[in-house]
Parts: sequence; structure tokens; C-alpha cells
Amino acid sequence: MINETYKSMLGAKSVIRELSEYATARGKEIGYENVFDFSLGNPSVEVPREFTDEMIRLLQEEDTMTLHGYTPSLGNAMYKEAIARSLNERFGMNYGPEHIFPTTGAAGAISHAVREVTKPGDEVLAFAPYFPEYGPYITGAGCELRVVPADMSSFQINFEALSEMISDKVMAVLVNTPNNPSGIAYNTQTLEKLSSILKEKSAEYGHTIFLLSDEPYREIVFEGADAPYVSRFYDNTLSCYSFSKSLSLPGERIGYVAVNPACEGADVIVPMCGQISRGTGHNCPPSIIQQAVAKVCGMTADLSVYETNMNIIYDTLMDLGFTVVKPGGTFYIMPKALEESAVEFCRKAKNYDLIFVPADGFGAPGYFRMAYCIDTEKVERAMVKLRQFVQEVYR
Amino acid sequence: MINETYKSMLGAKSVIRELSEYATARGKEIGYENVFDFSLGNPSVEVPREFTDEMIRLLQEEDTMTLHGYTPSLGNAMYKEAIARSLNERFGMNYGPEHIFPTTGAAGAISHAVREVTKPGDEVLAFAPYFPEYGPYITGAGCELRVVPADMSSFQINFEALSEMISDKVMAVLVNTPNNPSGIAYNTQTLEKLSSILKEKSAEYGHTIFLLSDEPYREIVFEGADAPYVSRFYDNTLSCYSFSKSLSLPGERIGYVAVNPACEGADVIVPMCGQISRGTGHNCPPSIIQQAVAKVCGMTADLSVYETNMNIIYDTLMDLGFTVVKPGGTFYIMPKALEESAVEFCRKAKNYDLIFVPADGFGAPGYFRMAYCIDTEKVERAMVKLRQFVQEVYR
Repeated sequence: MINETYKSMLGAKSVIRELSEYATARGKEIGYENVFDFSLGNPSVEVPREFTDEMIRLLQEEDTMTLHGYTPSLGNAMYKEAIARSLNERFGMNYGPEHIFPTTGAAGAISHAVREVTKPGDEVLAFAPYFPEYGPYITGAGCELRVVPADMSSFQINFEALSEMISDKVMAVLVNTPNNPSGIAYNTQTLEKLSSILKEKSAEYGHTIFLLSDEPYREIVFEGADAPYVSRFYDNTLSCYSFSKSLSLPGERIGYVAVNPACEGADVIVPMCGQISRGTGHNCPPSIIQQAVAKVCGMTADLSVYETNMNIIYDTLMDLGFTVVKPGGTFYIMPKALEESAVEFCRKAKNYDLIFVPADGFGAPGYFRMAYCIDTEKVERAMVKLRQFVQEVYR
Repeated sequence: MINETYKSMLGAKSVIRELSEYATARGKEIGYENVFDFSLGNPSVEVPREFTDEMIRLLQEEDTMTLHGYTPSLGNAMYKEAIARSLNERFGMNYGPEHIFPTTGAAGAISHAVREVTKPGDEVLAFAPYFPEYGPYITGAGCELRVVPADMSSFQINFEALSEMISDKVMAVLVNTPNNPSGIAYNTQTLEKLSSILKEKSAEYGHTIFLLSDEPYREIVFEGADAPYVSRFYDNTLSCYSFSKSLSLPGERIGYVAVNPACEGADVIVPMCGQISRGTGHNCPPSIIQQAVAKVCGMTADLSVYETNMNIIYDTLMDLGFTVVKPGGTFYIMPKALEESAVEFCRKAKNYDLIFVPADGFGAPGYFRMAYCIDTEKVERAMVKLRQFVQEVYR
């Protein structure tokens, strides 16, 4: 019999996808260059030449059976070593390859991490605003996602709400910094305070509350932002990473879980990931991609356009009187709409071919998200449209 | 808190992996050419040149952001169309791209297929001998795997046992033809009878019993074997495929679920796969691999060595008085051991540097599996050793 739970999920269409489809259709009418599509978080910068060169070299020089053969169930050794070395050098950690589990992007990483530290029926906390796919990742493990309300002034953490919501059912707290959709990075003070609360509550309830750190935007950090490495603040941290954004490789599904070597169960967590994979059919990420990324994992695509775009948009928004917190990284910004309903605001913006996403689905009603992973020239033209829109509709 | 279920799974070490590790260690002592390692099902033939050429062409010519960008959540359109066309041409089916869901190999395919047609607590039947990873795929979906005893004379289906074991809790039956570990392909008569029983029992219990067909060895079929396409016999079939063996790409994790267009729920099953992926973190298989395989999905690596090897081994086994059914495909053969305990038999064979796997873990105690995806020259030398072993130990 067809599974009714999955079937019932088919009704709910993604707002982002609907907007993106609208933008594509509208682009066919008026030319795609005239549609200012800020809906999708798809990287807009070239993949580093070194990645492409290494892929071609592997294909030309390596024995095909080794190159495309099964990787060990806990991952390619060269990849794991390269990741550990890169993280140690950049963040002063002491990972060994045995602490790295290769995954199919951050989605694979979070799905494994949640299963590692929970059992069905447990609760996982995340902070608004948050990436809506956290829902399925967590319910897919049989757990309940509970969302801690946002600190709307700075989009750091609402600690009062956090303290109230941690109970003995909470086994993990999931953070995302720099954050999709707000663009905000948690600063040193925030991470210190988070660590101290998690230690205190772990002691109070007699079990470790793990910190799951989703950090695909870790390498997209802007000037002046205080965006330290999360795992340095709290030993019981599993860092979930994807190269989707830093190397512009979202379709190739490559990332990892990095287990803090001082974490509870640090010696068994990666082998347990292998067991979790067996039940979900995950297996390893593709062999050739692991091998190529091993060579370039310390570098990034040229990410500077995102900061350029952010500054243009931020300045325009401020000039137009929007309420907005300046992003510390990512390629998102989340201003407050100019009327109570962000859905209504975004609907009106569409008349100006400005495609924004209401942040209601991210747990921030009244706000909207702009993904500025697009050409700077287009951002500049979009700002003219935005100015026109605001002046005509809201003045 | 660390998940105790996954932690407890760490104790059980895979027999195959242990043997393979032993073979590697032994190879370092006496030279790997002198270790006759029949333990691992790792393809031993070159990837088709056309695949490598297409990969290089994509890397050299395509825009990197399109090439490596997110694929649609239900898969790359070109890949889905190519698969549907290839299956239709070769097997007289009428798949559309909407019936194809790209997965990370057969593991991903089976994991999705099981979740499609069951809910936690249901039962799934498989037939001995069977691939031991079916256990985790099925329990990972919250269901119970029940194993129908083998028909030990021909390794077709023991229909009497099947009929007895189908109850109202059974929502799916999982077959694997050509079969790992026996090498046997289900013939027309077997598939007709299976179809007729499933129809009858579906009617009796008032719900569809789905047929999940795991067929990574579909393209490795030997002369004279009657090995028809499973889905032609039973409408409610989900075919689970991997290119691991046919294109020698096991590390690249590329396969699909193909939904029979006449299947119950055929219009919703692929979209539901997209929902299932969200909860397991599966996402799509890698973008570049989908695109390259789309170009070569109708071809195979040169698989003829497997049949050559099989004939050499089969003739030797018969000559030495083994009880063995001649494989119709794959790169496995499963003879009966020359003493009651196959574990003991394989332990003794190790003294001759012959690495065989006891089939106890496959649900066929007293038998052993030989994976002959190795060079023919080495197979020939192994047969000399096998003859010596049998004569010295069992005569």
C-alpha cells in the first residue's frame, strides 16, 4: 500500500519553488534579464579552475576502476585527511581523519548528525529564523523540531526563550551560522553564552545536549564580522558542512560531518555514521568528487561578489528606510517588510518584477528574504526598481 | 545522548570485509598476485571510454555553474528521459521521464522503494539467498524483513514457502535477479508464477503487494539464460537499478527507481520519492554523473570477462564433484561446501590462499560465494590451487 504520510506531503508546494517557477515563466515573457529573481540560493560564481583541472586530471590519468570504485564505507582516506588538516590549520582544531565522515552535502550531514545523538521521540531545538528543511531532517529521524523564537533585534540568540525550552527531552540544538535566511553570523559572545547554557543544562538533566552546527556558509563571511568556528566553543559539537557554496558545487552533493575530538563518543560517532548510512541508503558521496575536493578543500571560489552585492542592497535598503540587520556573511539578507504581511509585500513587489521570498516559512513572519547570488549589474538595476516600487506603493 | 541502537551495531563486523582485509594483509606478505581473493563484488572491467570522454567534455565545455548546480529535486530531465527511452527500447516498456527517480545507486533506490509502499511495522519478504544489506534497508524504514527459505535445487523461488509467509502484514516482496550471491536469474516461468501469487494475495488481503525488483546485475546475463525484465510480469513493480556493475561505477553512486506506468499510484510515486529524500538527506545523485550517464546509459562496460570466468570456474567445480547450479548472470557463483560447515570449509581454503565467503550471512548455510570479478589469468591459477586444496583436504 502506498505510504500515506509521504503522499500527504505532496500537497504543500514550496513557496520558494513557486516563486522561482514564476520568475522563469516571467523571464520567457519579458526576457530573463528583466526579472530580478532573489528567490533561490544557487551559487552564482564560477567553480575554481583548480577543481575542474583536478577532475580532468583524474579522468585522464587514473585507472578507471580505482577512480570510480567503491570508496571505503567511512569515506576516502585522502579526503578525510585533507579536511582534517584544513580545519586544523584554519581553526586551530585537532581533528584526525577518524573524526571526518564524508556526506552528500549538508543535508546528508545533518541527517546523520541528528540520528547520532537522538532516538525517536526526542526533541531537537533550532532557532528562528531557520532553514525550513530542518523540519524533514529532524522528523525523518523520528524526532520533533521545536523552534526557539528569534531575537528580532540582532538575530543573535534569544537566550531567555532557549533556557525555557530546554527540557530533558531535548538531545540536540541545531544552529546555522552564518545564517540562512538572515545572513547574520553568531559572534563570540553568543557562542560563549550558548556553550555555557548547554553545559549547565547537560549537567542539570544528566545527559549531553549536543550542538549540531550547520555551516555551509562558513566561508562566506564579510569584512568586520565576528564569525568564529562554532566547535571551538563547545566540545560536544558535530559540525555539518557542505562545499555547495564555498566551491559552488551544490549539485555534486559533497560535504562532511566533523566530530570534535573531545566530544562524547568521539571514537564511535564516525563508525556509527556508517551504520546510519546503511539504513537510509546514503552510502558515500561520489568517489571522483571526494578525490577532487580533497585537492581543493582549503580554497574557495571567488566569493567577493556576494559582499559587493550585500553592500549595494544594504545601503539601498537603509536609504529607503527599511528595518534590516546588516549580514555578516552568506548571500542572504532579511529586511522587514513595509507592511505587516510580508506575503502581501512580496506579492506587490512581483508587479515590479522583484522576486522576494516571504520569511514566514523561515519562522520570521513580517520579514522577507533576498538571495543576492546574482550578477552585480543586475543587483544595481534591481535597486532602481526597488526604489520605484517603494516610492510608488509605500509613500 | 549517543544513539544506542547504532552504537550496538558496531560490534558486528562484516565477514566479507574481514576476509577482504585478510586478503590485503596476506597480499603484502606473499604478493597480491598470489592471493586468490574471491571475496568482494567490485567490478573488474574498465569503465567505458565514452563515459570518461563525456565527463571530460562536460568539464571542458559546459558552464561550471550549470554543470555543478542544483539538479531539480526529482532529477535531471535529460537523465530521466534517457533512462526511460533506454528501458522502453530494450524491454518493451512505456516509461516516461516522470516514472524515473534518480538515486545514489541501488542502495538509495531500495531505501526509497521500501518507504514508498510500507509504513513502519509492515513486513517485507525477500528470498534466500539474499544480499545481507536488505536487512538495514528494510529495518531503516521501520519494517521487518522476513526471509523466504531458498529453493535449494535451482535457486528459483520456493513458492510453497512464499504462499505460507504472505500475510496481511506483508506490503512488499523484494527480489534480486540475477542474484547475489547465487548468480541465478529468475526465468519466465518463475516470474509468471510469482506474479500470479502476488495478484491472488493482493486480492485476498485487499491491498496491493508491491514487487520491489533489485536488479544491478541486469546487464550481466550469460548465454542461454532466460532472464526477462521483471516489471513486464507484474504491474505493481518498482525496479531498483544501479550503474555500479554495468558501467563499473560503484563509487559514483548512480542509479534509479523505475515505476511501472501501470503501477498503483504511478503518478505520485516519483514525487513521493522526493519527499522521502527530504527525510533521509538523500537529495539527488551528483549532477555531473547524471549528465554523463544520460549519454551512455544504453551501453555497458565490456562484461564478457565475467562469463569467461564463470565457465572456467563452473567446469572446474563440476569436475571436482561440487554441487553447484550454473549461474545465469552476475559475477557470483555459490557452490555447496565439501563439508557441512561452509565456515570451516572457507577457513581451510584460506590455507591455500583461496578467499571464499561462507554464504551463511546470505541465508544459505553450507554454501559459499565466489565473486569472480577478477582477471581470467588469476582465475585460471586459482583453479589449480582449488584442485590441490580439494585433493589434499577432501580426498
